[in-house]
Amino acid sequence: MLRKAITITNSDNIKYIHKSIEEVEFSGKSFDIIISSLALHYIKAYDELIDKIYKWLDRNGNFIFSIEHPIFTSYGNQDWIYSKENEILYWPVDNYFYEGKRDTIFLGESVIKYHRTLTKYLNVVLEKGFKIVKIIEPKPDENNEEMKNELRRPMMLIISVMKE
Amino acid sequence: MLRKAITITNSDNIKYIHKSIEEVEFSGKSFDIIISSLALHYIKAYDELIDKIYKWLDRNGNFIFSIEHPIFTSYGNQDWIYSKENEILYWPVDNYFYEGKRDTIFLGESVIKYHRTLTKYLNVVLEKGFKIVKIIEPKPDENNEEMKNELRRPMMLIISVMKE
Repeated sequence: MLRKAITITNSDNIKYIHKSIEEVEFSGKSFDIIISSLALHYIKAYDELIDKIYKWLDRNGNFIFSIEHPIFTSYGNQDWIYSKENEILYWPVDNYFYEGKRDTIFLGESVIKYHRTLTKYLNVVLEKGFKIVKIIEPKPDENNEEMKNELRRPMMLIISVMKE
Repeated sequence: MLRKAITITNSDNIKYIHKSIEEVEFSGKSFDIIISSLALHYIKAYDELIDKIYKWLDRNGNFIFSIEHPIFTSYGNQDWIYSKENEILYWPVDNYFYEGKRDTIFLGESVIKYHRTLTKYLNVVLEKGFKIVKIIEPKPDENNEEMKNELRRPMMLIISVMKE
């Protein structure tokens, strides 16, 4: 279970809660906006969390979250396929519709992530009653030579939804 | 330019128009629903077509379309990567953010398709004023042995939107 610092901003103060996302509790309609940055692909119970977030938001409140792209989490080991000459050939996709646990290495550490399809990410929020405002697969500037490979496959997904 | 039969259903009659999608014209608010089945990835000018479809729909009208999944059109040749023993290894993704023409073979014929990112498909409809109703990556039954490989990567995408 992932430990994350959750930041809450009021007009008067900022409160930091050091707790797993699954354990934190608030009363209903506590927030106008909830933001989650690259965290939900570590969470097993996505549906339950979206249910809570919906309750915590006031009417017309926004939930904006970034995740690792389903194409990035699908195969599992999160690396390119290379040629014998160690050149990148392509990005592998496999087991796409088999959702669940993936073991991978992140910054040298062994971590557990949860793969979900795009269908799952979007329809859970739609069925909960959210309206989709915008969806972006962020990409680097095309002239950025160091990031050139990031134009070859999508790594992240940013989803913005609103409670109507 | 693709030739497609376009079907229009009225209460009184059914009219078939044999014309390219790009060339067909109707007056505004002519339809309650427009359905497109696996055609838009052959269309170069996606934005312009969505603009027309929006105009052709009445208020609360639905536009439902299926396309080849961006992960399916990205690499280009639309085939798996195989081992020396001719076993499927994985699905290749490359050039994802380079939208545009892809040459491929479909049912033995050389055809031109147009790759677009998920971001493009969704935000063009959102910016036009459509509301996203549902998005599905269809998949076969998990017990269907003949279709087992179709669980390894998404091939299609079905998008349902509504003109508010």
